[in-house]
Amino acid sequence: MLSADRYFDPSPAVRDIARRLYQRVAGLPLVCPHGHVDPRMLAENTPFPDPAALLVIPDHYVTRMLYSQGIPLERLGVPSLDGTPVETDPRKIWQIFADHFYLFRGTPSGCWLTHELQDVFGVTEPMNGATAQRIYDQIASQLAKPEFRPQALFDRFNIEVLCTTDAATDTLEYHKQIRDSGWKANVRPTFRPDRAVDLLNPAWREEISRLGKTTGQEITNYSRYIAALEDRRRFFKQMGATATDHAVVVPYTGELAMRDVEALFDRALRGEASPEDNFKFSGHMLMELARMSVEDGLVMQIHPGSLRNHNRAVFARFGPDRGCDIPLATEYTRNLQALLNKFGNDPRFMLVLFTLDETTYSRELAPIAGHYPAVRLGPPWWFNDSLEGMERFRRQATETAGLYNTAGFNDDTRAFPSIPARHGLCRRVAANFLAGLVARHVIDLPDAEAAVVDVSYNLVRQTYRLAK
Amino acid sequence: MLSADRYFDPSPAVRDIARRLYQRVAGLPLVCPHGHVDPRMLAENTPFPDPAALLVIPDHYVTRMLYSQGIPLERLGVPSLDGTPVETDPRKIWQIFADHFYLFRGTPSGCWLTHELQDVFGVTEPMNGATAQRIYDQIASQLAKPEFRPQALFDRFNIEVLCTTDAATDTLEYHKQIRDSGWKANVRPTFRPDRAVDLLNPAWREEISRLGKTTGQEITNYSRYIAALEDRRRFFKQMGATATDHAVVVPYTGELAMRDVEALFDRALRGEASPEDNFKFSGHMLMELARMSVEDGLVMQIHPGSLRNHNRAVFARFGPDRGCDIPLATEYTRNLQALLNKFGNDPRFMLVLFTLDETTYSRELAPIAGHYPAVRLGPPWWFNDSLEGMERFRRQATETAGLYNTAGFNDDTRAFPSIPARHGLCRRVAANFLAGLVARHVIDLPDAEAAVVDVSYNLVRQTYRLAK
Amino acid sequence: MLSADRYFDPSPAVRDIARRLYQRVAGLPLVCPHGHVDPRMLAENTPFPDPAALLVIPDHYVTRMLYSQGIPLERLGVPSLDGTPVETDPRKIWQIFADHFYLFRGTPSGCWLTHELQDVFGVTEPMNGATAQRIYDQIASQLAKPEFRPQALFDRFNIEVLCTTDAATDTLEYHKQIRDSGWKANVRPTFRPDRAVDLLNPAWREEISRLGKTTGQEITNYSRYIAALEDRRRFFKQMGATATDHAVVVPYTGELAMRDVEALFDRALRGEASPEDNFKFSGHMLMELARMSVEDGLVMQIHPGSLRNHNRAVFARFGPDRGCDIPLATEYTRNLQALLNKFGNDPRFMLVLFTLDETTYSRELAPIAGHYPAVRLGPPWWFNDSLEGMERFRRQATETAGLYNTAGFNDDTRAFPSIPARHGLCRRVAANFLAGLVARHVIDLPDAEAAVVDVSYNLVRQTYRLAK
Repeated sequence: MLSADRYFDPSPAVRDIARRLYQRVAGLPLVCPHGHVDPRMLAENTPFPDPAALLVIPDHYVTRMLYSQGIPLERLGVPSLDGTPVETDPRKIWQIFADHFYLFRGTPSGCWLTHELQDVFGVTEPMNGATAQRIYDQIASQLAKPEFRPQALFDRFNIEVLCTTDAATDTLEYHKQIRDSGWKANVRPTFRPDRAVDLLNPAWREEISRLGKTTGQEITNYSRYIAALEDRRRFFKQMGATATDHAVVVPYTGELAMRDVEALFDRALRGEASPEDNFKFSGHMLMELARMSVEDGLVMQIHPGSLRNHNRAVFARFGPDRGCDIPLATEYTRNLQALLNKFGNDPRFMLVLFTLDETTYSRELAPIAGHYPAVRLGPPWWFNDSLEGMERFRRQATETAGLYNTAGFNDDTRAFPSIPARHGLCRRVAANFLAGLVARHVIDLPDAEAAVVDVSYNLVRQTYRLAK
Repeated sequence: MLSADRYFDPSPAVRDIARRLYQRVAGLPLVCPHGHVDPRMLAENTPFPDPAALLVIPDHYVTRMLYSQGIPLERLGVPSLDGTPVETDPRKIWQIFADHFYLFRGTPSGCWLTHELQDVFGVTEPMNGATAQRIYDQIASQLAKPEFRPQALFDRFNIEVLCTTDAATDTLEYHKQIRDSGWKANVRPTFRPDRAVDLLNPAWREEISRLGKTTGQEITNYSRYIAALEDRRRFFKQMGATATDHAVVVPYTGELAMRDVEALFDRALRGEASPEDNFKFSGHMLMELARMSVEDGLVMQIHPGSLRNHNRAVFARFGPDRGCDIPLATEYTRNLQALLNKFGNDPRFMLVLFTLDETTYSRELAPIAGHYPAVRLGPPWWFNDSLEGMERFRRQATETAGLYNTAGFNDDTRAFPSIPARHGLCRRVAANFLAGLVARHVIDLPDAEAAVVDVSYNLVRQTYRLAK
Repeated sequence: MLSADRYFDPSPAVRDIARRLYQRVAGLPLVCPHGHVDPRMLAENTPFPDPAALLVIPDHYVTRMLYSQGIPLERLGVPSLDGTPVETDPRKIWQIFADHFYLFRGTPSGCWLTHELQDVFGVTEPMNGATAQRIYDQIASQLAKPEFRPQALFDRFNIEVLCTTDAATDTLEYHKQIRDSGWKANVRPTFRPDRAVDLLNPAWREEISRLGKTTGQEITNYSRYIAALEDRRRFFKQMGATATDHAVVVPYTGELAMRDVEALFDRALRGEASPEDNFKFSGHMLMELARMSVEDGLVMQIHPGSLRNHNRAVFARFGPDRGCDIPLATEYTRNLQALLNKFGNDPRFMLVLFTLDETTYSRELAPIAGHYPAVRLGPPWWFNDSLEGMERFRRQATETAGLYNTAGFNDDTRAFPSIPARHGLCRRVAANFLAGLVARHVIDLPDAEAAVVDVSYNLVRQTYRLAK
């Protein structure tokens, strides 16, 4: 069912080289420096409950597409915050999913799911309304086996390292539990303090209070706030973190004078921060967080340009991460100038930039990464983590940024069993892209053979400071 | 002359599948839900006057290109509004066109014209200065025959349904005449009230006056205006309309308080509306028109982002639609948020979004269509209705929006004899795109065989509520 | 080492046609209407000093990439303005370059350098750390020979005409020296008055003073300023110039009232011009410079959208043109409307537009060039002067602008020995693009054979008024 040549250019002149290049990386361990796998799942290692709970309900790539065609999220079993009853029979949810599996034709979810079903669960018949329940049975019976528990899958997937994403106030208890368990997996936290930085988030005040408790000193002013963040970074680093992550709407950077930021922070504590305050604070904090990264060596990631929870009715009923975040045009050249001028030439600093606005690849991001020593380009993110999206990235960024200012792949997923499918797709696209360069005589085969390993394995380890 | 493999990828691995897929849709009827064919031409069914009047003078894709190379529109017989004399000899106009036919190399007009000349008129020699008059004679002799009259061509083209575009105040008399004539063609109007909504259009006051007369009640305030638009929508619906269409510069949406919009409308009636008033009114009216669509079921189309009549000298002499409209960067995520939050989850609502700004495909439009149940993406519009334009759309939109949140094809043309060429090009590109997915093992052949029919025929009928 | 099929589509159906088309243009003379070769180098015709001084130190495409990977510019011998010592041993610089040559995999610099090394200098082994010094020796020994002096290379490269870029106050002494030398080369200046127009440039006042001296009348007001610019244009034209060039951040155009521009200019003379003054003056001067072009027939070029010297630390130490200019999103439709409405329909005017923002190809630039008679699109500029960049340009601009509203190629280079490599790459991509159109039956072979010569040779000569 899965062709050995899948995702390669069908022209033999390229495909034959792509095959050869892919062979060099197909078996390399998976490096997962950025993602949303729940560490509790790995720590507790309890069996996955059922196929719908594993593959449909929590995957907003899947539920979003079904919703876009008129299927209410309630019918898909997505848990509601407001008490609205939702479907609880996983077989009914699975049937809807299978009835509409044709919606995923030509999408990355379609590719990943097809790969997962076959390679992880051994499903060999196509998914549709008629086969739905048979496939359900097959997956359910697999999930009951010990070799389908999370830790067994982690080992089978050949994951060299997996980094989770954790709030500044997270206790990292499941990371401790994994460490203490004797299981030899390399699972690391990532410091993502968004909730403590976004002054307009309704949960900000509570997060600041939690931050004070966690660090043992109430946060009554800006200096204590900064000290608390630094304290948590030290803790994360002790727990194995090598990176931080920051989501902002606009990647504006700019330092405020100390007295101004202190006054602004006081307003925020009193619940009086304005949108303009929040914008300035975001720009100031990116500077501060970059300064901390220079000092403690944690790699800084910035993920800008998503307007979260665009659909307020869905957000009100089902909460965040339900597929209703919509990207915005994003400007980097002027917005990042302050940060790059202050830290971009510093050899201690590593900054990984992401985007949902592909127009910035050739216009802004590749020129920035092709100049500033601190900058690496993150792989195509979210909607663009796809066959065509990765090809556009390589075609639009490589000529100006080069291959070596890119940060390798990350799967950015909470869908644990999709990890091999995602890395496999990326490695195939990389092999195919480099094969195209060889076939057009832009580079020669030995160069491509070295580059495919760098792009698929070495660069991500170097960028995220994960190389042993 | 026309290759059976035209527009397909020349690599046999793709081409052979594309051929097979195209065979499934080549003979399907043409569904034309959006275009600018003059209903009077169809109703009166008089012969087309001559080749230049049919293929050159009214086609702004053609005259624009000739003008860009220094040929005055006067020499092309484009009628002037200011009394400037223009060429009246169709043979001279045709000669200029043929002398410069090389300008259309690699353009969609070149593809369409080559197809039309051969398939509709039987011309088999290449167009150039030497063949110009022979080809003129050949076409002219065809046009004299009964089988080249509009209705005969309509039937020969296998048009299942054709929707015209009509002002809110249009009497639809030619639609009535077609209905009453016994001719069995399915020709429908589309409600496009732009002239009645754009407060800064010099013709607005006059259109409002006409709207009052048409609906039998003078429009003296906002409530009567809304009532009149609703009245006209009922009439259009009775006359077979299934859709409305709205051109705006910026797709901003946002409701005004009733007292504010009433005051604003009063200012407009007094001729005192400011550009800011017009912007706000446009945003408010998109909300109102969406509300009406939810209630009456007419599919709403939005065509934003064209700066009309950029070249004022050409506009002053020759009027609108002369090829001097230039696109603008267009933002959808924030602009449409009000409308989508209010109506985007409503199962009664269908909204088809168009763009001239291709950067929004992957960044904004596909994420919006891949989430909101009401939204479908219109096909590549205007300058992007082309081989490369359609490929970019499919490559950039499909992975996030899926195939099934797209609205199929529409030809958007006033060039009646180009209709088969335009649909043919689109169907070939669709077959080729899907063949590429099969050849790269993204989908399998049975999936592609189903999808090519959906994309070429079923989706457009469903989206525009034209399925029998 | 260099494949005869390099850069062609590897699919035989395209490649075989591409080969055939390329044969028609491979031997045509090189037309270089825009670039940065130093006329002094050509006039004095002294030998190039050493391989590093020729190929590494002055090439900001090369030093930028090495810098982005952490190699200080000091170690690359880039001369500092502030007295910081830099590497002076060319062999050490060359060794670093060779050690990191893998960074240029998949970049245009990689393509050009590989071509140059083999075709100009006869190097046949791959560049790396081990071969570095042997290759250095080989190039150094070539550079000592008379046939590697600038004039000999110019003749060997088959350059039909080469235009330099020169400040308004340049004496053009080296152009005179070439003229007087009896060497038959066609070397022309280009009028680029940026330093005299950018009021915020610290060197503006001095340039105005120099402009006064050069034209024999002190510039005490706006009228004298305009007269001086006109005077210099006459001089440039006498010296063979056929074009002007203008760099602006934003391509805003708009005329100021005479009294306003006079007052603004007086403020600038007093050192009191604000950023807003500068913006308005830039827009006004583009109008004035266009007016002058209409009158004197010099082709006007606009290069907008680069934020120069983004990295201030590098600028402070090493000055401009060190690879730290970063592009900005650029708007043309509204910004150019005033200029195009006033001059865009004038048959005497020729305006060549460039961009670093590829999103404008299909959205703004192709529609503008496909309508206004005065406008031609410049080739992909700077970061986009590359295999993929040129393909994107052709694919995104051709369908709307046509082939004949494009301005052919220019190499825009200060790297003299890279000229054949750059033109070769462009001609190959053009042949390959047209071959793709033939293979997809969009145009036929005779059309492509005519078009490839137009695109590679005729159009650039016509656009820049260089045809003999």
